[in-house]
Amino acid sequence: MKLPPALERVVASLARLPGVGEKTATRFAFHILGQSDTWTSELAHAVGELHSAVQHCERCHNLSEGPLCVVCNDSTRDPRRVCVTEGIQDLIAIERAGEFDGRYHVLHGVLSPVKGIGPDQLRIDTLIKRLEPEGIEEVIVATNVDVEGEATALLLQRLLEKRGVTVTRIATGVPMGGELEYLDQVTLARALRDRRPI
Amino acid sequence: MKLPPALERVVASLARLPGVGEKTATRFAFHILGQSDTWTSELAHAVGELHSAVQHCERCHNLSEGPLCVVCNDSTRDPRRVCVTEGIQDLIAIERAGEFDGRYHVLHGVLSPVKGIGPDQLRIDTLIKRLEPEGIEEVIVATNVDVEGEATALLLQRLLEKRGVTVTRIATGVPMGGELEYLDQVTLARALRDRRPI
Repeated sequence: MKLPPALERVVASLARLPGVGEKTATRFAFHILGQSDTWTSELAHAVGELHSAVQHCERCHNLSEGPLCVVCNDSTRDPRRVCVTEGIQDLIAIERAGEFDGRYHVLHGVLSPVKGIGPDQLRIDTLIKRLEPEGIEEVIVATNVDVEGEATALLLQRLLEKRGVTVTRIATGVPMGGELEYLDQVTLARALRDRRPI
Repeated sequence: MKLPPALERVVASLARLPGVGEKTATRFAFHILGQSDTWTSELAHAVGELHSAVQHCERCHNLSEGPLCVVCNDSTRDPRRVCVTEGIQDLIAIERAGEFDGRYHVLHGVLSPVKGIGPDQLRIDTLIKRLEPEGIEEVIVATNVDVEGEATALLLQRLLEKRGVTVTRIATGVPMGGELEYLDQVTLARALRDRRPI
């Protein structure tokens, strides 16, 4: 039995969410169908206004409600240290860790030849423009520790070090609570190579 | 860092989907934020119009695009046999099996004292009204094989048999490809009790 077109459209839209296939999307669509009109219109409205209601910080491209985000507006943060992340969710994760007191710069992507994303598609130019006015001394590259994240880190190192900025990378190694027995060999090899005095 | 209110609203709405917690909803919301305006408005529009665009069959409460659904409109289906399901997705699953050539009746729920769902909240009255005009001889109860589904089946049996209709229940037993070793004991006990000559 074919689904009605209106339901098919919801399924097709929802199936584009990350990790959602047609089967899950169908389950979601039937669930929405069974809910009250109030909730359905709430969801439709919230999704519809999302793009226009959410702004990005002019300086670091974090989410914001005004021209600058909460981090950039916070005068207690150290402007000399900038942490570069791939996306806003990474920034949120680092904020949650509560270790970093500098500012951020969100690239909104990483280098990816497969997806056709080159340096020009990332917010690197705005980072370079920030160096002098903010007196940035250190850029900590906190992209993911995978091929694309490492390539992006190398690119940033090449672009920024010649401008007199120290470029560092977040440490790789055994995660807290990690059991060596089950750890992949690349991580273990890195952890040995990057060993430090106790 | 707190999320902007517009994003929070999307997260709160999506977190009500089945099996979606706040973490997944946040991932979905960020994904939507990163998509094109076209898709976002498509999703918003599809969800918004869902309730008004999808109709239910006047006779069997299946999804439909007109007053009657595709099954009820199909003159080759046997009107004397009616399969009762809990929801539309169950009906779709049975249609996919391709074994049943009668009509359906969707209860849109099952008896559930815990959720406060009694016989009056189910579409049982409309089923009883169908018996005579359609000449229904057999009602096959295909609710889920759990406590609520079994209770609903018993209720239907009580209500319908005194009206001269044969009430049957879908078989329970070992599923195809099922290995006895890993099967729960209730299913296995039922399969033994309901054994049949080869």
